[in-house]
Amino acid sequence: MGQLDVFFNPDGIVVIGASTQKEKLGYGVARNLINSGYKGKIAFMNPKRGILFDLPIHQSISEIGEEIDLGVIVVPPAFVPETLTACARQGIKHVVIVTGGFSEAGEEGAKLEQACKRIAKKEGMRVIGPNCIGMIDTHLPMDTTFIQPPMPEAGEIAFITHSGALGAAMIDWARGEGFGFSRLVSLGNQMDVNETDMLVPFAEDAHTKVVTMYLEGIQDGEAFIRQAKKAAKLKPLIAVKVGRSTAGQQAAASHTGALAGEDRAFDAAFRRAGVHRARTAEEMFQWAKMFAWCELPKGKRVAVLTNAGGPGVMAADAVAYHGLQMAELSAETMGELTNRLPNGASVHNPVDMLASASPKDYAGCLQILAKDENVDMVMVIAPPPPMFTALATAEALTAVIAAIGKPVAVSFMGSRLVEDARQYLRQQHIPEFRFPEDGMAALAMLWQEGENKKRDMEELGCQVDEGAKKLAAKAVEMRLENQSGGFVPPQITGEILSAYGLPIEKLHLAASMQEASSLADQLGYPLVMKLAADDLSHKSDVGGILLNLQSRKMVEQGYQTLMTKGRELPGVKGVYLQRMAKKGQEVIVGGVRDAVFGPMLLFGSGGVDVEGLGDVGFCMAPFTRNDFDDLLANTWAGRKLAGFRQYAPADKEAVYKALVCLGQLMLDTPEIQEVELNPMIVFEAGKGASGVDARMMIGRK
Amino acid sequence: MGQLDVFFNPDGIVVIGASTQKEKLGYGVARNLINSGYKGKIAFMNPKRGILFDLPIHQSISEIGEEIDLGVIVVPPAFVPETLTACARQGIKHVVIVTGGFSEAGEEGAKLEQACKRIAKKEGMRVIGPNCIGMIDTHLPMDTTFIQPPMPEAGEIAFITHSGALGAAMIDWARGEGFGFSRLVSLGNQMDVNETDMLVPFAEDAHTKVVTMYLEGIQDGEAFIRQAKKAAKLKPLIAVKVGRSTAGQQAAASHTGALAGEDRAFDAAFRRAGVHRARTAEEMFQWAKMFAWCELPKGKRVAVLTNAGGPGVMAADAVAYHGLQMAELSAETMGELTNRLPNGASVHNPVDMLASASPKDYAGCLQILAKDENVDMVMVIAPPPPMFTALATAEALTAVIAAIGKPVAVSFMGSRLVEDARQYLRQQHIPEFRFPEDGMAALAMLWQEGENKKRDMEELGCQVDEGAKKLAAKAVEMRLENQSGGFVPPQITGEILSAYGLPIEKLHLAASMQEASSLADQLGYPLVMKLAADDLSHKSDVGGILLNLQSRKMVEQGYQTLMTKGRELPGVKGVYLQRMAKKGQEVIVGGVRDAVFGPMLLFGSGGVDVEGLGDVGFCMAPFTRNDFDDLLANTWAGRKLAGFRQYAPADKEAVYKALVCLGQLMLDTPEIQEVELNPMIVFEAGKGASGVDARMMIGRK
Repeated sequence: MGQLDVFFNPDGIVVIGASTQKEKLGYGVARNLINSGYKGKIAFMNPKRGILFDLPIHQSISEIGEEIDLGVIVVPPAFVPETLTACARQGIKHVVIVTGGFSEAGEEGAKLEQACKRIAKKEGMRVIGPNCIGMIDTHLPMDTTFIQPPMPEAGEIAFITHSGALGAAMIDWARGEGFGFSRLVSLGNQMDVNETDMLVPFAEDAHTKVVTMYLEGIQDGEAFIRQAKKAAKLKPLIAVKVGRSTAGQQAAASHTGALAGEDRAFDAAFRRAGVHRARTAEEMFQWAKMFAWCELPKGKRVAVLTNAGGPGVMAADAVAYHGLQMAELSAETMGELTNRLPNGASVHNPVDMLASASPKDYAGCLQILAKDENVDMVMVIAPPPPMFTALATAEALTAVIAAIGKPVAVSFMGSRLVEDARQYLRQQHIPEFRFPEDGMAALAMLWQEGENKKRDMEELGCQVDEGAKKLAAKAVEMRLENQSGGFVPPQITGEILSAYGLPIEKLHLAASMQEASSLADQLGYPLVMKLAADDLSHKSDVGGILLNLQSRKMVEQGYQTLMTKGRELPGVKGVYLQRMAKKGQEVIVGGVRDAVFGPMLLFGSGGVDVEGLGDVGFCMAPFTRNDFDDLLANTWAGRKLAGFRQYAPADKEAVYKALVCLGQLMLDTPEIQEVELNPMIVFEAGKGASGVDARMMIGRK
Repeated sequence: MGQLDVFFNPDGIVVIGASTQKEKLGYGVARNLINSGYKGKIAFMNPKRGILFDLPIHQSISEIGEEIDLGVIVVPPAFVPETLTACARQGIKHVVIVTGGFSEAGEEGAKLEQACKRIAKKEGMRVIGPNCIGMIDTHLPMDTTFIQPPMPEAGEIAFITHSGALGAAMIDWARGEGFGFSRLVSLGNQMDVNETDMLVPFAEDAHTKVVTMYLEGIQDGEAFIRQAKKAAKLKPLIAVKVGRSTAGQQAAASHTGALAGEDRAFDAAFRRAGVHRARTAEEMFQWAKMFAWCELPKGKRVAVLTNAGGPGVMAADAVAYHGLQMAELSAETMGELTNRLPNGASVHNPVDMLASASPKDYAGCLQILAKDENVDMVMVIAPPPPMFTALATAEALTAVIAAIGKPVAVSFMGSRLVEDARQYLRQQHIPEFRFPEDGMAALAMLWQEGENKKRDMEELGCQVDEGAKKLAAKAVEMRLENQSGGFVPPQITGEILSAYGLPIEKLHLAASMQEASSLADQLGYPLVMKLAADDLSHKSDVGGILLNLQSRKMVEQGYQTLMTKGRELPGVKGVYLQRMAKKGQEVIVGGVRDAVFGPMLLFGSGGVDVEGLGDVGFCMAPFTRNDFDDLLANTWAGRKLAGFRQYAPADKEAVYKALVCLGQLMLDTPEIQEVELNPMIVFEAGKGASGVDARMMIGRK
């Protein structure tokens, strides 16, 4: 299929279904296109003919000249297929289908959409929609939507939305909040073009400084990550992904699977791709404004400048809440502030100039703070001052902020008394916020973007020989032959994991008591004994594990105990004996395949309480150093590996290697749905680790 | 001292330091008082005399008539003490000191404030301030502040603030957001009257429907809880408490102490008192608006009504996020919706009427939803509609909402296109929100308030005999005699806890190997051996504990091992022997004394990882059933007690009783700073629990 360039800069646009009746969408589209100031050729088409905005309405597409290369279709749904064909015949290979009534409206509509899709494919057409509000580019300019005028102000924020209603709402929101859009696209049913296709073109747009997204789902997760990574190198990306609550938890066979779920996968995928995830649309655009108007800070140290104590404490709380740091002002800075400010003022951070602070004080103190090398960003807070107008303060601040070269967020707390000041700042492209907390959240994202750029995102694999891959493939075949998927027998699981370089204590099958006792003597004590049954997910639940068997006698007693328990279970074929691991820290490492994004990895506190404690983190496979750092920092299991009280520093690198190998295994063998070592005992630094229990599941349960 | 009534309804007010110079605060106060429409007598005083707002300025307070009973003092700080004396002489026993320059400004100011305090005490005066903006009552009406006019609109929200600047900012904020205040007080340095004093009078005010608070700290935590509990029975209370990040962690000797900290104490105290804690001022007033304008819902089932899919999903996410529940609509409701709505609309919750929805559709569908018995609250979402004005929708909704009797929150997403609709709703006292998420958070609080009213808050104690109290008192004496406080010897700790009904395995001291082995034979095996040293907080850190000693020989070996380890430690006097507890669930129970609020209790996952995992909850002592329910629900340790996989249901009541007893001990013996049983092994239901290790600390470390 063709490229998308024409959507972003068409030579000419025809509105197919343009209407002179003001209540029709076909009128709205024509009106907005004309009003947008679009500089290419504009044509209208409607079998009824007529004149619209001083232009003739053509009766058929064939009447339209050659310079038209983009069609905007607003005809009733039933006419869309033939319209597509007519467009193709005229050489129009790019269309936006605004019309609704397709797959979103039921079965009939879905069939119609399929018909359109076939035509588009056959003719090599690219299609945005159907059931969308189309595209806006405020700089080109161009507006193919029907939404209420005026068009959004020209700005630096691009917006890709799965919801047309949200697109319209956010355009109006932006108008009130004083920021503009560079580009906006509403993708509707995504019959062809989807969010992933738009990422790089939007990020490449010269007028765009940040790309925002409202997402309801993603079709091809791996393609999304690939494109988002490219786009994130060019511009910051922010997304709201809704449907957290309805995210279907897959039926799971392991802790890893049970804890995974769609929303965790989106988190991991966004982290991998470098997409900042906002919880709400409001938050997303607050962050976007910051990205659009400020440079990235060098660090996370914030100075707070205020004229009252309370808001200063609020801001300091927000600094901690968002993982930033209160700057420690230099002696020189504090000296200068002391000279400038009255008695009783606080020259420590947060700097409280007292209620008497004039616009000049604000400007002067901001200048002093900004040149301190210990300050990376500044938050200026101005509750309605009793003696001066907020506007005067805003004006005084503006000159300083322009010259500083460090991010500054401003919060004029209040409403009517500060409205003009806020508007003034917006016009100057200075990010301002209703409350200090909102501004601090946005500063934190700005810092995070800088951190993202420093991450070690090299994707790591491990070398395995062909034998290992063959073992895995054979296990897959074995399972798929017998049934629609399920557990791999524990011994084979162990062999595959070993071949992939994972530290796993070997299982030895004993089918009789005699076998068990002679095997035990051979292996040496202490030993672990497990009931040998293929599909037993949580062995400890049924008491199917015996630990610390110290003698032949205990092994024999154990054999009897387990076989008695196993009597009523299916497929029991004896017991496994395994050397008992020495003491160490118990962790879990695992892999699970997400339906959208593919393989993910898990690390956390191991044992039987994994799900209950939830002390785990996820990341995408393949593994990276950055993921490892995140997992260590964000779990207690990870922090503990560095040593804590009675815990000696443990062999982190063994955990690291295990996750790299698990990632490789998941990539090599797409049929593996879940795999998990729990617990894996991590020994002291340099002494490795030992996977005590492992399970692996092929296909879906 | 006298009562506070005069502050809320004075017969007459004198502004002392009233000024004709417009830039002076003394002018601002006079202006606001006149403009407020205050109906009592108004007098001005200033040695310079003159005329102000057609009233004479008196030269001295003695010139002022008898009907004046409230003084507002705006004279320079140095003149405040003599002004107080003059007021007292004239019978004015209630004053607001607006003037700043007292304890907030340094040492000199602090001395001056002390002088004022002495005078006030001697004369039996009640004082608000100094360094405050004073009081507003919009219904009386009265305004003693100097802030920029106009006075806030009359409303139903009362506001108590520790920050005058935030008071001024929020008055302006309220104006822009379309809500009003009933009363507002800024308390400044709280030389006399503080937030606690204001709680009940504010809650009793007939015009107030909800009391909001901005708090920087609390002087007397126990009094606050007492008064807040009274006030919360009358009206909902909401607080923002800042200083979370700077909350000093006390140096702690136990896990309980280390995890406590000031912010946890505020959380626990607010929960006990029934105060809703908001994170930001914006959030607080969004909730307050909901409380002011809506009845409490019967349950937590929310129906969402929208004209577009995206915002519906956003709202559903918010329902889950805030612990509410999506209502399952009845078949009848869905039938009626189906009849009313076009094909392609969703009649399941969230109900999506599609973009064509008219104001009539909004009103009609809301009516259908509201009469469904499965619906407790409704969230209506209206992005700018393409075909109708937002105002028409707002008007159509209003008539329905007025008649429903269930809480309805409305979100017109957007800005300019929906501004008139939002203003209209505010005038009708219908809570409306910029984004559905904000409205959902407020609905959740409304539900929470209803839940609070159902809580079993009976404060539970346990009967202990005098012997137990004496034991505790003796331990206190012992420690206080020797040093400034510290650990109670483990054996004595055990005796005290036993006497208080806590299940604790007795420690038997053995000062020699001979003693150890004969004691061991007497007690029976298996045994635990611990190094006997008084101030050893984390014994396992130094390897000072041996578990599972099965024989006399192991005891003798153990004795040698521990004494070798103990050689370099101070105060080692042998080993303790203790019967080894059977297996069960390991929890921690503890008590810690907060500097502001007094005794708190802790429960959670026990063992050595307590702090790292942080699976714990706090509550105030004495204990209540409601606290227990919260602790069980909010910790994995608590949920697990009900039974999970290999964990049999455990003896919850033993945990409950332990916490009741610990609470009693903390209340009886105020010198106990920290006390903790960790681990406490909880056996199967009905089989009790056993505290394996205990520590207790007296006074400050």
